[in-house]
Amino acid sequence: MKTTIRTLEVSAHLGERVRLTGWLQQLRRLGGVNFIVLRDGWGTIQAVTEHEADLAPLSGLGLETVIVLEGTAVSSAQANSGVELHQPKIEVITPNTETLPVPLYKNKIQAGLPTLLDHAVVVNRHPMRRAVFKLAAGVMAGFRRTLLEKQFTEIQTPKIVASATESGANVFELGYFGRSAYLAQSPQFYKQIMVGVFERVFEVGPVFRAEHHDTIRHINEYVSLDVELGFIENHFTVMAVVREVLAGIFAELETRYSAELTLLQANLPQVPAKIPHIHFAAAQELIYERHGVDVRGEPDLSPQDERWLGEWALAEHGSDFLFVTGYPMVKRPFYTYVDPQNPTYSNSFDLLFRGTELITGGQRLHLYEDYLAALAAAQLPTAPFETYLEAFKYGMPPHGGFAIGLERLLMQLLALPNVRLATLFPRDMNRVSP
Amino acid sequence: MKTTIRTLEVSAHLGERVRLTGWLQQLRRLGGVNFIVLRDGWGTIQAVTEHEADLAPLSGLGLETVIVLEGTAVSSAQANSGVELHQPKIEVITPNTETLPVPLYKNKIQAGLPTLLDHAVVVNRHPMRRAVFKLAAGVMAGFRRTLLEKQFTEIQTPKIVASATESGANVFELGYFGRSAYLAQSPQFYKQIMVGVFERVFEVGPVFRAEHHDTIRHINEYVSLDVELGFIENHFTVMAVVREVLAGIFAELETRYSAELTLLQANLPQVPAKIPHIHFAAAQELIYERHGVDVRGEPDLSPQDERWLGEWALAEHGSDFLFVTGYPMVKRPFYTYVDPQNPTYSNSFDLLFRGTELITGGQRLHLYEDYLAALAAAQLPTAPFETYLEAFKYGMPPHGGFAIGLERLLMQLLALPNVRLATLFPRDMNRVSP
Repeated sequence: MKTTIRTLEVSAHLGERVRLTGWLQQLRRLGGVNFIVLRDGWGTIQAVTEHEADLAPLSGLGLETVIVLEGTAVSSAQANSGVELHQPKIEVITPNTETLPVPLYKNKIQAGLPTLLDHAVVVNRHPMRRAVFKLAAGVMAGFRRTLLEKQFTEIQTPKIVASATESGANVFELGYFGRSAYLAQSPQFYKQIMVGVFERVFEVGPVFRAEHHDTIRHINEYVSLDVELGFIENHFTVMAVVREVLAGIFAELETRYSAELTLLQANLPQVPAKIPHIHFAAAQELIYERHGVDVRGEPDLSPQDERWLGEWALAEHGSDFLFVTGYPMVKRPFYTYVDPQNPTYSNSFDLLFRGTELITGGQRLHLYEDYLAALAAAQLPTAPFETYLEAFKYGMPPHGGFAIGLERLLMQLLALPNVRLATLFPRDMNRVSP
Repeated sequence: MKTTIRTLEVSAHLGERVRLTGWLQQLRRLGGVNFIVLRDGWGTIQAVTEHEADLAPLSGLGLETVIVLEGTAVSSAQANSGVELHQPKIEVITPNTETLPVPLYKNKIQAGLPTLLDHAVVVNRHPMRRAVFKLAAGVMAGFRRTLLEKQFTEIQTPKIVASATESGANVFELGYFGRSAYLAQSPQFYKQIMVGVFERVFEVGPVFRAEHHDTIRHINEYVSLDVELGFIENHFTVMAVVREVLAGIFAELETRYSAELTLLQANLPQVPAKIPHIHFAAAQELIYERHGVDVRGEPDLSPQDERWLGEWALAEHGSDFLFVTGYPMVKRPFYTYVDPQNPTYSNSFDLLFRGTELITGGQRLHLYEDYLAALAAAQLPTAPFETYLEAFKYGMPPHGGFAIGLERLLMQLLALPNVRLATLFPRDMNRVSP
């Protein structure tokens, strides 16, 4: 039997008889010429025949029938990939006679969001949907590659936890052998604890937020790319790692995922050698000066503020990225390190990407007594945190980290209208399947 | 300021003054000579001084104090790493005055399992505990590397699901915006669905089992290394991938984790070019012939059966690994592909590693009507599965896959007495923290 090759390999076999397997993506009859498009897990290839008899095995069958397609590889200016198959021979592996809920052969998917999500198990086969998830794999690969090169260790921390990580709100509760437990909102404490073990750690895993938000930017389960490192000077040490990680991710996409980027018309950002940064208070002054809107004293930036700052970073620094540093403590979680110069502010940052927050991070408290004080100030009980805080009892270095939401990164990179479209099978307030 | 280097880099700086940061792992005074052992995220290094004054910064402080250690790198036959520091200068970053719940400076940890687990956030700093989790990272890296080279695509599938994947039993239930949802027991259906998108997929992620088992081999949340691929001939195609993945994992450990393997006295297996296999029925015959115990007709293998088969594989084939194929359908989940030659059996396999089951896999059903029939035969309702089964309605190729439990692999490789010791922060019936 002939070895089966993949669509991407056909151009290396010009003049040869090749065998491929995949799905019948399209079948067109144009003035006596028949075009068969096969899709495999990597791309598509077109076969051409004038002989109706070559199509006989597909008689009565529909698109998405799983087939073997043999043919002679011929270069062709008309074909998308510059190559097509002649003298095709088709064999059916799995017939399909059902009409698809959404046509997959059109260049753009023509269906509303609910239909796309209801039928995601099939719609995700569309080349444009698939490209999004190939890029998701690329982001994870670039993230890990960069951190492994920098001597970070990958960890996997538990997702079932005894108490809410940061506060009692917004966590999912589950029954756990007759008691209650919760789904982790983030691996925050665990990654901090692991700084005591490996100094530099990262994790790629699901996080769960029971937030009652029904917006284009919220889903209730997402993939978090988490980083934490010890022996930092302050949050600027962390920001330097953020820059390297972003550069590594985008280099990975540029090098290995150019077909997907092209298909999705993605505009890959340049990561500057030094990402510009501005202090939170200075950012509010800047907005006042440039736009006449006085947001000084507000505890947080609004989406409009972020857009203005993004425009400024692009105009002033030619950068798609901008660090805003020193967010007010009132808006940051209790484990955030206070700015030693001005306790109103914190040693924290957000990274804006094209005018929208993409990454949050900062320096954390590292002294046990500071945790006790911070919990007291936040009017939180210490008991639920005791087993986690034990790490801080026995010597922890200054440390910090950050988290990237995989789906939001893809949403912003690809200018998707909804974060659900950056998720294979999204979970929101109203959707828990497929 | 001097650049900080890591313990592993000291030998490259002989004769130079170097600066390291880390934890005070040990402090010994022997006949006027003082030994200071620093541990960083990668290893340990010893400093030696006869001057008590050099230790002054540590006065009143305990082990695990976080320090800066400067010294002159000198080669030394006595030191473990062949190198030590002279003329040390110590600076305290984070003092520790608390006595540790378990001493970390001894070569072996001397504490019972409950103590180890209660204080895991600190105990995991011990070099022998740390080595286990470094190897966990190595297994994940080898797994991914092998599959990426074989054109598999990494996916992340949801962990909150609308219904129990395989049966109503053994799932955790959670409150989800006023309704019930469940934690995924495995990414089984999702990885199958994704064969329709990418043909070959893998996932590394948590799975959740509400099993009421309190044994040395059970935890209720673990990391599953999942693989699924399409266009297979039968389960033997899947088994060939299992072999390559195992070879890739152990090659990764051998190449990059030799220090950890040595420390843990791990006996790395050879993965044979072809792993031997035996049919389930033949395995039962073999046990009857060799051991006189008649297990023929039993629907499953007992742990004793598996040990006997492991001994046989080693004696007969010189292999630490043995595939047992064709498990009876009655013991396999409903989506398992029936053996076309004998419907009592299935196109499935277990991989025994040193006489214990390590990996389960097989061919799956791929026709929608076969799923309906299998659900009916298993007396399961179709409604909860409809949205997942949609993928099978529209053309799916023959496919199969397997899953490796990360913690069990480590437990068996390292001959750990309890799977909890292969888990950073284990979850069992009685434990949900730290």
